[in-house]
Amino acid sequence: MHAITIPEPGGPEALVWSEVPDPVPGEGEVLVEVAAGAVNRADILQRQGFYNPPPGASPYPGLECSGRIAALGTGVSGWSVGDEVCALLSGGGYAEKVAVPAGQLLPVPKGVALERAAALPEVVCTVWSNVFMISHLRPGETLLVHGGSSGIGTMAIQLGKAVGAKVAVTAGTRAKLDRCAELGADVLVNYREQDFVEEVRQATGGTGADVILDNMGAKYLDRNVQALAVNGRLAIIGMQGGIKAELNIATLLTKRAAISATSLRARPPEEKAAIVAAVREHVWPLIDGGHISPVVDRELPMREASAAHQVVEESGHVGKVLLIAS
Amino acid sequence: MHAITIPEPGGPEALVWSEVPDPVPGEGEVLVEVAAGAVNRADILQRQGFYNPPPGASPYPGLECSGRIAALGTGVSGWSVGDEVCALLSGGGYAEKVAVPAGQLLPVPKGVALERAAALPEVVCTVWSNVFMISHLRPGETLLVHGGSSGIGTMAIQLGKAVGAKVAVTAGTRAKLDRCAELGADVLVNYREQDFVEEVRQATGGTGADVILDNMGAKYLDRNVQALAVNGRLAIIGMQGGIKAELNIATLLTKRAAISATSLRARPPEEKAAIVAAVREHVWPLIDGGHISPVVDRELPMREASAAHQVVEESGHVGKVLLIAS
Repeated sequence: MHAITIPEPGGPEALVWSEVPDPVPGEGEVLVEVAAGAVNRADILQRQGFYNPPPGASPYPGLECSGRIAALGTGVSGWSVGDEVCALLSGGGYAEKVAVPAGQLLPVPKGVALERAAALPEVVCTVWSNVFMISHLRPGETLLVHGGSSGIGTMAIQLGKAVGAKVAVTAGTRAKLDRCAELGADVLVNYREQDFVEEVRQATGGTGADVILDNMGAKYLDRNVQALAVNGRLAIIGMQGGIKAELNIATLLTKRAAISATSLRARPPEEKAAIVAAVREHVWPLIDGGHISPVVDRELPMREASAAHQVVEESGHVGKVLLIAS
Repeated sequence: MHAITIPEPGGPEALVWSEVPDPVPGEGEVLVEVAAGAVNRADILQRQGFYNPPPGASPYPGLECSGRIAALGTGVSGWSVGDEVCALLSGGGYAEKVAVPAGQLLPVPKGVALERAAALPEVVCTVWSNVFMISHLRPGETLLVHGGSSGIGTMAIQLGKAVGAKVAVTAGTRAKLDRCAELGADVLVNYREQDFVEEVRQATGGTGADVILDNMGAKYLDRNVQALAVNGRLAIIGMQGGIKAELNIATLLTKRAAISATSLRARPPEEKAAIVAAVREHVWPLIDGGHISPVVDRELPMREASAAHQVVEESGHVGKVLLIAS
């Protein structure tokens, strides 16, 4: 088969479409013939040499895909060859085939094209595990989503609205904020021109955000804590603004607030499977029913992954950038 | 009635036994004739002028007491005049009488003397809400308790062991650590001589603590995060080591860990009542059954609260210091 390999870390040109051995599904795994993969920021870090695959993972980039089951390893039940699926991966999604634990598979939802289903696993699992399983967003609460027009952001807006929360977003352009509003965002903050702490306070009658989904890390830590409501929860899933910052524990304590930080990729298969199962139970019916949709910026041939990385690094996109395998 | 008042903030001598008007129970409250109160560090901060009572709370210090119900306000059911109770208070425990919402009352457990029951509400509610309701300590996990010989610490050790956790503690003297061991602590760390990060790592085969109950705040923040296991939870309940410190978000994220910070006193009555109800359901049977006991360092007359504060400020005590009302 072919896969995108990274012979030497570097810029987008470091991604090379190469012939490589087919993966072999182990016990409890299936082999998926990939229809599409999708780009995540972690792939860019991996390309740059800053994010090595966890032990046992495929050496190729790609944390999610869609496709058809081509073969079953031993000990797999509930799935058949030919099933159309999408999958949460530990790596290897930028390839024509990938082996994945059966617990990380999801059926392609009703009304979603096979290729577009590749836009779902990473964003849905990330948002569900952080905003709902860890931070317990409830109806009537306020969710603040940083990077509202990203793949994660566009899904967080839709899921927040689906459970009856008020959703505030930050983004860097009017056009991106308009797209967030189309998806249901109630409060739009242009972070280049406005202070999100002040805007969220005003929009909530002074109480602040009950849950914040943050991809900036250090740069926003203090202001995120300021923006939290009493009993608020800050879920950090990225560190695009650095890794170390001063925490004001007194502010946190006065608010009885909590901070969590997670990544999906490093979780062991049993934790990934638990998240995938919860997503299938709680989120898949919303997609099947047409209440939530994957947001896709564009589709590019997988062999042109370099161009896809350039798109994501330039941050002009809204939603996910897909890599079509054939 | 008489109560300890604070005419001017200051040292222990600022506490003055004075004649004051009796409190009147409002709707949903009961009037308790106090048998004993207990000293908490928050009382010392209040005496020093650093911790004003929340709006609506008694101006007198004292966050817990035991005694007999002397009168019922309107709308109270399930309690009768004469019942022996202990209570979580927002203030006013250093007094001969105190009015308290009925949801903050607990019966005096079987086999516990009325006065000694004053040692229970604050520590049990603090430990249960933080270690169990927020941080979800589970059997087989490791709990690290800073200040293991404090009132909070001695209860956290017992509750941790009662649910089948391994318990590690820090304290500053051999004698205090010996008392922690008698209460069931498995791992004893003298913080003056040993590095708790290293000791906890060694005691857990390198994995670290699943839950940490911390009263130090800033001074321990970075080392607490280092000492956490994957999926670990740090519960901060005090800031004896300062309020601001650098947080390494990358370490937190790699561990998929969480930090919470809370205080009990500032919670509204409905949150206090929810914690008290959970404590009555989960912890009271353990005390009734003799599996857990209040740890009392000494009992002093309430009018000598100054002496009691000196004891707590000198930190030579183990467990709670009680103030006997009559």
